[in-house]
Amino acid sequence: MTTIRPLPAYLVQRYQGWKATTYADNQAWFRRLANEGQRPRAMVIACCDSRVHVTSIFGAEQGEFFIHRNIANLVPPYAPDGDYHGTSAAVEYAVTALKVAHLVVVGHSQCGGVQGCLDMCQGRAPELEKKTSFVGRWMDILRPAIDKIADLPAERQAAALEREAVLISIENLMTFPFIRDAVDRHELTLHGLWMDIGEGELEAWDPDHGRFAAI
Amino acid sequence: MTTIRPLPAYLVQRYQGWKATTYADNQAWFRRLANEGQRPRAMVIACCDSRVHVTSIFGAEQGEFFIHRNIANLVPPYAPDGDYHGTSAAVEYAVTALKVAHLVVVGHSQCGGVQGCLDMCQGRAPELEKKTSFVGRWMDILRPAIDKIADLPAERQAAALEREAVLISIENLMTFPFIRDAVDRHELTLHGLWMDIGEGELEAWDPDHGRFAAI
Amino acid sequence: MTTIRPLPAYLVQRYQGWKATTYADNQAWFRRLANEGQRPRAMVIACCDSRVHVTSIFGAEQGEFFIHRNIANLVPPYAPDGDYHGTSAAVEYAVTALKVAHLVVVGHSQCGGVQGCLDMCQGRAPELEKKTSFVGRWMDILRPAIDKIADLPAERQAAALEREAVLISIENLMTFPFIRDAVDRHELTLHGLWMDIGEGELEAWDPDHGRFAAI
Amino acid sequence: MTTIRPLPAYLVQRYQGWKATTYADNQAWFRRLANEGQRPRAMVIACCDSRVHVTSIFGAEQGEFFIHRNIANLVPPYAPDGDYHGTSAAVEYAVTALKVAHLVVVGHSQCGGVQGCLDMCQGRAPELEKKTSFVGRWMDILRPAIDKIADLPAERQAAALEREAVLISIENLMTFPFIRDAVDRHELTLHGLWMDIGEGELEAWDPDHGRFAAI
Repeated sequence: MTTIRPLPAYLVQRYQGWKATTYADNQAWFRRLANEGQRPRAMVIACCDSRVHVTSIFGAEQGEFFIHRNIANLVPPYAPDGDYHGTSAAVEYAVTALKVAHLVVVGHSQCGGVQGCLDMCQGRAPELEKKTSFVGRWMDILRPAIDKIADLPAERQAAALEREAVLISIENLMTFPFIRDAVDRHELTLHGLWMDIGEGELEAWDPDHGRFAAI
Repeated sequence: MTTIRPLPAYLVQRYQGWKATTYADNQAWFRRLANEGQRPRAMVIACCDSRVHVTSIFGAEQGEFFIHRNIANLVPPYAPDGDYHGTSAAVEYAVTALKVAHLVVVGHSQCGGVQGCLDMCQGRAPELEKKTSFVGRWMDILRPAIDKIADLPAERQAAALEREAVLISIENLMTFPFIRDAVDRHELTLHGLWMDIGEGELEAWDPDHGRFAAI
Repeated sequence: MTTIRPLPAYLVQRYQGWKATTYADNQAWFRRLANEGQRPRAMVIACCDSRVHVTSIFGAEQGEFFIHRNIANLVPPYAPDGDYHGTSAAVEYAVTALKVAHLVVVGHSQCGGVQGCLDMCQGRAPELEKKTSFVGRWMDILRPAIDKIADLPAERQAAALEREAVLISIENLMTFPFIRDAVDRHELTLHGLWMDIGEGELEAWDPDHGRFAAI
Repeated sequence: MTTIRPLPAYLVQRYQGWKATTYADNQAWFRRLANEGQRPRAMVIACCDSRVHVTSIFGAEQGEFFIHRNIANLVPPYAPDGDYHGTSAAVEYAVTALKVAHLVVVGHSQCGGVQGCLDMCQGRAPELEKKTSFVGRWMDILRPAIDKIADLPAERQAAALEREAVLISIENLMTFPFIRDAVDRHELTLHGLWMDIGEGELEAWDPDHGRFAAI
């Protein structure tokens, strides 16, 4: 693997700072986590976006959150066809092996993936329609929701579709038998959030009123 | 979506603490990131494991790292077949749209996914062989590496396979045309790491000596 | 310009080492920074002193900090009189053009400029009182603070005046209309620090208690 | 000073990493530097730009370089008029008090200050002509050099003017009596550099051939 390069010095330095502080201060806990295994209370499904780190927003300590991050925080429908399904594997492991108590889907404002989906569905991004576009095909998961935001003014569609991405992911989660079972047995609760990056506002889906509302 | 429940109070409280401190102290920066978009320097592919948060290890600030997390930090081979490929979509977006300068794959000790792969390949986990096992099928990505660790003493096989998971992911990354092109044009460098959770040691693949070595 | 001499070999060697390592490892990022421009999150105003490199203390990577360094980290009051004002120009560029989110003034122990000011104000450095002394005239910025430390024991006066240099600079910063506006609009926050060189201790001004306190 | 805010957490974290590593590893040297004072070998005059840290390029260790950074690495002519002259004070302190052996002026590509000067002189930036523009008045230092680049193709003018900024600063340095004396006594040498950010190339003024040439 001569392709691999040494780690850039700034990442070495960051790591060394972490080792000498966070690790040194919590060595006993890290060793217990290593020896006894993880026991996270919640799984979070969030976007890869560099501006939304749920580890920061929820003050994630070691061992607390099992975190899957993908483009636009999407979950595809249940499809046990033998292919690679990274998101489904993460969900399966969290619910059936780790038995997390909460599963939280976190969307966010200014999501590049959602904007790409909107552009694609409205004919402005033909390159995303190609079979070879991994982003385009991945965003197909969100395509069924496009009709729900079609009547909104153009400037509000992206933010609305970002929230639909959270809802459709939770709908898809409920197509997984092991999720539905865990929810029915009250062993798992599902939660939907949307974060406004610029304002720092977190909205949660309010099932009583059927809308997202600021926390 | 009556399935969705309100956010547990402990997460509300964590968020409110973040809003009153991290957000309040950095409001101007968050607004700029929202208005001007992200420009992360690196993409990190790491495991969902709750004990290994690269955001902590590398002191990730808002806007710095585009992070994909899946089971066992795996990247499947290039396969533009029109299906959902979350990992491939994340990599495509990071390299072609965001033009990250570094792509870092981070493996770790005590990886449940890798242990499952080992158990499966050695006949101890028949349930993972089923077509309906998302974890089993996802870990098939690592299966080609199983021969490389077969001759090691049993107690060293898991840690060796964890490192192979990093290497096979980077090999698979190089099967993506846009990755190979970016590497060839010196616009992207690839890096492979492995973290020992209990000891806090970070190893990097050393291309000169062909092995992982402590930083 | 026959006055100019070739670069000393030790600096050539240092540069060549940097080129072969830091630059080589981060070429893609340097090119992006060159093509797309800088977007620093913070401006730092620090002393020229060779013992206090904020680039080291804050692990400054390329693109992160806009740094002005002058004698005793001083900012003069707002005075748009058409003369050369290097510090005011740096602050104006950082706040109005680059729109930094934070402006941090960093003082330090054993500051030669502050000691000179103390000596001058207490009659021990008549050469600094001369109109032709650039250092003396520059340190006049700090002169209004001398009364605040006059009652302290002699051996504590210099360290106290170093901290006053930070405070008076921030007071002066607030006389610039564009700074006051940015602070009022929550687009900019001001911060005051003092570093003990020998002990490596960093103190920050605590607005709640009205004093510098160790971080 | 209720205007001052606590230091953002990410800077606290960066500092703590430095304290636990760089400081801890070099405590004895920091204490000697604190007790015995600095003895830098060279003064560097560089730009505030966040992409050009001479501390990185020259691997600046504690105590080695006395560093002044301002917009466009400019030095105004000698003018002992009793006003605040931050750059002149820094130069005076370095040469007469610290007796540095080398004085290095470092310019760079994509310099926002130089571009502003070019725009101003060519009528494209009337706001910089105002008496109240600190950046405009500061860039007046470079105005005498504008004729030297006027005949070049437009796309080459900025880079040429960046190099002229280095030369005019060194010319101005030679108008300071204490500099000329130190140079004449062979106690000080002057050096002019220009860094290409994207390519990592460092050019030095070659007095034999009267041009900048790659090192």
